[in-house]
Amino acid sequence: MSELIRFGVSMEAELLDHFDHLITERGYKNRSEAIRDLIRNELVQEEWKKSDAEAVGTLTIIYNHHVRELTHVLTSVQHQYTKEIITTTHIHLDHDNCLEILALKGTTEKIRKIADQLIAMKGVKHGKLVMTTTGKSV
Amino acid sequence: MSELIRFGVSMEAELLDHFDHLITERGYKNRSEAIRDLIRNELVQEEWKKSDAEAVGTLTIIYNHHVRELTHVLTSVQHQYTKEIITTTHIHLDHDNCLEILALKGTTEKIRKIADQLIAMKGVKHGKLVMTTTGKSV
Amino acid sequence: MSELIRFGVSMEAELLDHFDHLITERGYKNRSEAIRDLIRNELVQEEWKKSDAEAVGTLTIIYNHHVRELTHVLTSVQHQYTKEIITTTHIHLDHDNCLEILALKGTTEKIRKIADQLIAMKGVKHGKLVMTTTGKSV
Amino acid sequence: MSELIRFGVSMEAELLDHFDHLITERGYKNRSEAIRDLIRNELVQEEWKKSDAEAVGTLTIIYNHHVRELTHVLTSVQHQYTKEIITTTHIHLDHDNCLEILALKGTTEKIRKIADQLIAMKGVKHGKLVMTTTGKSV
Repeated sequence: MSELIRFGVSMEAELLDHFDHLITERGYKNRSEAIRDLIRNELVQEEWKKSDAEAVGTLTIIYNHHVRELTHVLTSVQHQYTKEIITTTHIHLDHDNCLEILALKGTTEKIRKIADQLIAMKGVKHGKLVMTTTGKSV
Repeated sequence: MSELIRFGVSMEAELLDHFDHLITERGYKNRSEAIRDLIRNELVQEEWKKSDAEAVGTLTIIYNHHVRELTHVLTSVQHQYTKEIITTTHIHLDHDNCLEILALKGTTEKIRKIADQLIAMKGVKHGKLVMTTTGKSV
Repeated sequence: MSELIRFGVSMEAELLDHFDHLITERGYKNRSEAIRDLIRNELVQEEWKKSDAEAVGTLTIIYNHHVRELTHVLTSVQHQYTKEIITTTHIHLDHDNCLEILALKGTTEKIRKIADQLIAMKGVKHGKLVMTTTGKSV
Repeated sequence: MSELIRFGVSMEAELLDHFDHLITERGYKNRSEAIRDLIRNELVQEEWKKSDAEAVGTLTIIYNHHVRELTHVLTSVQHQYTKEIITTTHIHLDHDNCLEILALKGTTEKIRKIADQLIAMKGVKHGKLVMTTTGKSV
């Protein structure tokens, strides 16, 4: 971790008051941490605009494991991407529905492609990709 | 406008460096203004979670004015909400397509309802609501 | 407008039931129109991933016109982009706050750049860009 | 799973053509599956507007495990929510950075609250909540 720098920020009393209220509600201990989080979030979004940036993503899918061949196909496809898929967590939600979470590492373009392919499968009811970071630059 | 308050924020040198780079690219003159914008954006999003908060919105719709009755119906509906619709700007994009922008003021719930109703109309190809603020609390 | 095509869609009764409920609430007259809107929205988002696609956008900004020089600077900057800015609508929200809506046409990259620059200005409290379409391809 | 229903959708040839192109790129085998996914996504977003709806979420956080006490505090907090946290997957990204993914089940309000609290912690660099579904209603 690099050296800590301290700098001043000016703000109207009323705006600061609203901000303090919001971050207290969200559980922040101090303004610096809340501001750093806003900044990091902005930087991560920016990284994901570049298709060749090295990034981390997690894909959450909900699927019905009774759909014929789905479990088999999901496994096959995931095996094509062993370089990018770090791990897969599987949770049995109820008799029909499974929750599967994949941790992915690679270029933003590749991660998006894998996510699109898995979400498109018949039986996968819902899928969402979280675009996050390797943590190196934030 | 209320009194200006100055406070200190601490951050790793590397994170600050990335932030400075981003805000320069976006045209910010200084960090305070960029941080205030991040904070205001967060507060506006929070306001829109309350259905009865007084807010401002703009609705952008793209429609084909050749669709039978559409222009007439759009006008009729808008006349039901003269209290909320401050103004409507109309632009002729090409021979077929119109761009219409409505400025709205009211509760977040009412603004959403008007937007839903107009976007749902046959002939309205695309519609998006911007949720912004009266500016009073930010 | 091109020829109308009709095709079949299959869906679980329960899912269709939930969908029918949702679109009735939003004011849709029939499923086809609601499905077309979901599709168009997806296509517009896709268009905006290409930096050189011709698009339409509207920028909504809220600003305090008492901030020194802001009105003047906003006008100057807007005059640099007369090719892209089709029209500007100005609304006096209260004694301090203005709502300004710009209709823009150009490449997605250029529209984003103009939006970034205006939102970054001191005194502009909140700004949001709506990314929409020329209507030609949807 | 409930009975399958088939219904007709009408669309301009050109719009359908663009849609077919998009879904082929994303790996869909047929239009029905792509349309069902668009619909389910809309329904899931709608569910998350109700604070007391039963839902499933996954929280992805990136943190620096060298930050004093963080690992300990993260574990303590998670133990307050054993009813909602189904499982936690931990991945060592590099010497400093950890990726942690929590699968959560509960009301949308409770899931959001847990996510806010964990994201707010000092040392947690980035956090994103995926709002998904138990799969029962979609």
